[in-house]
Amino acid sequence: MSIRIGILGYGNLGRGVECAVRQNPDMELKAVFTRRNPADVKILTDTAAVCPVSEAPQWKEELDVLILCGGSATDLPAQTPEYAQMFNVVDSFDTHARIPEHFANVDAAAKKAGKTAVISVGWDPGMFSLNRMYANAILPEGKDYTFWGRGVSQGHSDAIRRIPGVKDAKQYTIPVDSALKAVRAGENPELTTRQKHTRECFVVPEEDADQAAIEREIKTMPNYFADYDTTVHFISEEELKRDHDGIPHGGFVLRSGVTGWERENRHLIEYSLKLDSNPEFTASVIAAYARAACRLSREGVHGCKTVFDIAPAYLSAKSGEELRAALL
Amino acid sequence: MSIRIGILGYGNLGRGVECAVRQNPDMELKAVFTRRNPADVKILTDTAAVCPVSEAPQWKEELDVLILCGGSATDLPAQTPEYAQMFNVVDSFDTHARIPEHFANVDAAAKKAGKTAVISVGWDPGMFSLNRMYANAILPEGKDYTFWGRGVSQGHSDAIRRIPGVKDAKQYTIPVDSALKAVRAGENPELTTRQKHTRECFVVPEEDADQAAIEREIKTMPNYFADYDTTVHFISEEELKRDHDGIPHGGFVLRSGVTGWERENRHLIEYSLKLDSNPEFTASVIAAYARAACRLSREGVHGCKTVFDIAPAYLSAKSGEELRAALL
Repeated sequence: MSIRIGILGYGNLGRGVECAVRQNPDMELKAVFTRRNPADVKILTDTAAVCPVSEAPQWKEELDVLILCGGSATDLPAQTPEYAQMFNVVDSFDTHARIPEHFANVDAAAKKAGKTAVISVGWDPGMFSLNRMYANAILPEGKDYTFWGRGVSQGHSDAIRRIPGVKDAKQYTIPVDSALKAVRAGENPELTTRQKHTRECFVVPEEDADQAAIEREIKTMPNYFADYDTTVHFISEEELKRDHDGIPHGGFVLRSGVTGWERENRHLIEYSLKLDSNPEFTASVIAAYARAACRLSREGVHGCKTVFDIAPAYLSAKSGEELRAALL
Repeated sequence: MSIRIGILGYGNLGRGVECAVRQNPDMELKAVFTRRNPADVKILTDTAAVCPVSEAPQWKEELDVLILCGGSATDLPAQTPEYAQMFNVVDSFDTHARIPEHFANVDAAAKKAGKTAVISVGWDPGMFSLNRMYANAILPEGKDYTFWGRGVSQGHSDAIRRIPGVKDAKQYTIPVDSALKAVRAGENPELTTRQKHTRECFVVPEEDADQAAIEREIKTMPNYFADYDTTVHFISEEELKRDHDGIPHGGFVLRSGVTGWERENRHLIEYSLKLDSNPEFTASVIAAYARAACRLSREGVHGCKTVFDIAPAYLSAKSGEELRAALL
């Protein structure tokens, strides 16, 4: 029985989920729900409907999983508990500090409705979290490191765009190579914010803008840039479009630990991602967890789950026998 | 309630488990079972008993998990089904081709007895399997690569030691750097056995041994060396002891895949391990899965499991709340 998928919100992530669903033969996209005028939203899948968000409740019996592709700031805190009352849902809520609160809200809604919800799915939170957790369980005495990049940070790019005189901008987060090397060498360095990442900004200025003032404003912006070594490049709109149109990202999760009666042996666990498209990779992780949500729901396992709570085999279309024979 | 651990078999792996148990404050080593004369076996933990294997059944009620530290060739195929009739067990069975058969035998025994068994725990099979599986579920269209090393292969070292005129030997398996680089560059190479790994041998010859004959015999040995570029170094017993006393290992699991409507975006997932001590790291993974076996058993989940079947949170001493707050 194929897994019937709905997508709520059709931006980069929603389109990524649409593509991921096509790569999984046991899934079928049935509907995309949008806050825009459905007539204005062109999707890629001929066989799926485009509907206004207000019609979503009518699809209650037609979907196995509804994937929520809104933002973490305002959309998901409201949407995930709301739709978990009607559907099995998966979201990519990524405001780390607010995860406990979001979990509680979604758990209450899903349990009451007998639905299965999986929150904070993607690569961080998501695959990076999993790797931190496995590595911590295996090496209880050790030190964790997470590096992000080289990749585009949407939040930092937006922050630059809000500066007067800036027409457009892209910001790349870049891990400091010497810091990564020190971790890999088992030196267990204590790293400051500045020692872990640098930030590189490509800015299209308005005509006659004060470039020195823009650069100063970027480099001294609290939280976003002040604690980092930041480079600012002014480029033309054409150059931005030509050279910085993609949404690549990635990063590294490392744990360096010791074993042995005298703690005499060192071990390094490293997980890394190099992604051409941040939203499409996030969407691919979400698609696998949508399969898990559907299966858990069919087994009667309800409430809110995270990647920590779901056995790996639930993500795969293969049977236990096939997995043991081919991948163990 | 602390997790009471028994160890059956006190070689490198058994000693590694003993060390790992000490690093996990929620676990306690109660007994080591040995086929040797217990009086001749000195363990590190003052508070644990050393007993003959024949007494293991008497400990049925005293242990939460019995960890089987025998070999995959002859010990575990018999021991794991046998002891799963009395204990929750964890083993590190690593003969990939025979896993389905071993799983079936252990599953039948454990289910009949209402016990929980986890087989094939370690890093390959184990953490490498998990990473292959997650990466396959996330990127259904892609290509897998596993490289091992640089590390000591016990099987290949033993094969050299059986050659007449060889007093002692250590063999290192080494991944070919250019092959790794091609995979990381997204070239999706088709790699032959020879293109993936080289083998380096350090051999202590008997006095007056025919070194040329030994080298020829190693390099042409079917299955073990004939398909690889192999280097042979003759060294003294002192050099072997001084420079090759450790049991390091490690390796790389990579998946290179595509996403997007036109498969236009490429992604690379890489997991790697760099281990000073192969048995101690394997033992550390086993300790985490012993925690899982104990919990699953307390929840009434019986039968045979692999790393694919166990939700990550079961491995950690932390609660769900703590994990979500700290590691998600």
